[in-house]
Amino acid sequence: MFNRLCIIGVGLIGGSIARAARSRGLAASIVGYGREQERQNLETAKRLGVIDEYFLDIVPALEGTDAVVVAVPVGAVESVFALLKPYWSNACVYSDVGSTKSNVIAAAERVFGVVPVNLVPAHPIAGAENSGVEAALPDLFLRRRLIITPLEHTEPAALNKIQIFWERIGSLVSVMSAEHHDAVLAATSHLPHLLAFALVDMLGRQDEQCEIFKYAAGGFRDFTRIASSDPTMWRDICTANKDQLIPLLHQLKTELDKIEQLLADNDGRRLFETFSYAKNARQRFLDQLEN
Amino acid sequence: MFNRLCIIGVGLIGGSIARAARSRGLAASIVGYGREQERQNLETAKRLGVIDEYFLDIVPALEGTDAVVVAVPVGAVESVFALLKPYWSNACVYSDVGSTKSNVIAAAERVFGVVPVNLVPAHPIAGAENSGVEAALPDLFLRRRLIITPLEHTEPAALNKIQIFWERIGSLVSVMSAEHHDAVLAATSHLPHLLAFALVDMLGRQDEQCEIFKYAAGGFRDFTRIASSDPTMWRDICTANKDQLIPLLHQLKTELDKIEQLLADNDGRRLFETFSYAKNARQRFLDQLEN
Repeated sequence: MFNRLCIIGVGLIGGSIARAARSRGLAASIVGYGREQERQNLETAKRLGVIDEYFLDIVPALEGTDAVVVAVPVGAVESVFALLKPYWSNACVYSDVGSTKSNVIAAAERVFGVVPVNLVPAHPIAGAENSGVEAALPDLFLRRRLIITPLEHTEPAALNKIQIFWERIGSLVSVMSAEHHDAVLAATSHLPHLLAFALVDMLGRQDEQCEIFKYAAGGFRDFTRIASSDPTMWRDICTANKDQLIPLLHQLKTELDKIEQLLADNDGRRLFETFSYAKNARQRFLDQLEN
Repeated sequence: MFNRLCIIGVGLIGGSIARAARSRGLAASIVGYGREQERQNLETAKRLGVIDEYFLDIVPALEGTDAVVVAVPVGAVESVFALLKPYWSNACVYSDVGSTKSNVIAAAERVFGVVPVNLVPAHPIAGAENSGVEAALPDLFLRRRLIITPLEHTEPAALNKIQIFWERIGSLVSVMSAEHHDAVLAATSHLPHLLAFALVDMLGRQDEQCEIFKYAAGGFRDFTRIASSDPTMWRDICTANKDQLIPLLHQLKTELDKIEQLLADNDGRRLFETFSYAKNARQRFLDQLEN
């Protein structure tokens, strides 16, 4: 569907998009762009056949390119937009993969004044414990959700191209506003990460005083798995989406106050109701995850 | 090491103790006791060879028994103590498997006045997603922590027997006070469960208003796994250990306040430090779990 796809940032996500596009025949050629310090990584990507060619200069990288996917960390998106700006082409569609969308749109507004009609913000809800192009998989996005957050003035043809691209990759595509995206992801992803980091930060300090981790088991391992996520990435995501996160933190503290009161009151009935409601709600989530 | 081991409550834990004791040759015979409504479960336990015989009457169940393990839910321990009291024998050692220990000791004090010298409170830190005797495994406790919380007047010989019993089963035995046990478990097990239930309760209600679980992924599944735990069991544990849990809830809220302030201040440096500290602390936990 594209003549030349250019991936800006060939890591786990960018590399997996390249592999997925290649395995589904979605681009005649696939190239990568990175900075000088990413040369070795790009060399690996080429050697592994993830990309056909790589460039450290943006001009030849964009030559003949009709699709650009920006797959750099959220904090670096603005500088990539600035890099692309002088060569922006109406014959090309542009997209990104950022975990927060309002701030990607704000970055585009700072760089372009108005978000270009052929820039289609998107977020594939997928990831893996590993990172780097060596971990890239052609099926990372298969049956995974992908959210597109167009603006009112986004060109329908560009939106359509990006939607079809991801559908052919095998993702389950939803279209919604950036605000709604950020609210949903704050609840189901950013808040849980923040909570896991907070709990392990607090308990880690207790563990230094008197060993407690020694007696922690499998439940603790699962509950805290996301506290092993990349601190830089999550600092960027949490600060980018703090307007959604802060109200959720307030809500959570209200919930914890409620539970503390139930404990203090020995209100076993309402405690049971709360736990049962949660257990059933999680089952609802699991049923959806499987379908 | 025992002539006759009597398991009171032959579920996942009681059944796994029976299987472990049998596979290691720790008891010449193993019997189970339960109430009339547990007849079918006891029948299954016998059919599967988990126990040799079962009784619905406590008198024959205790005949010739030199070791009793109470493996009923925390909330039912007191009534089992009352059941055992008239037949209490100095020729026998008694233990339990409750997830909270101060309340088991308090229950014994209510029933016996003073905790019997041959009652040795213990807690195997192991479990599985499934429950019931069908899920019982002989290796459920292998290389898992087991904490014994004796009182000052607990008979050293009785303590010793229970310790050796669990060591032969393959558990890593620690001895500490009930208060210390409850503080440690509140931090590494009870608080995480409470938090998982609280988060899923809160988000489940949002999901009913506007679909959010649809966009949740693997990280959310792992983080909330323990919110699928048995609500009755966790209501009992949380209320039994509320004196430890409530101060931890306060600490956690202070931690969340700190993080909220870092977000509000855009203090990326300290946010990164917090996340990095947590990531490293979790690695310390993982290293211990494997060793």
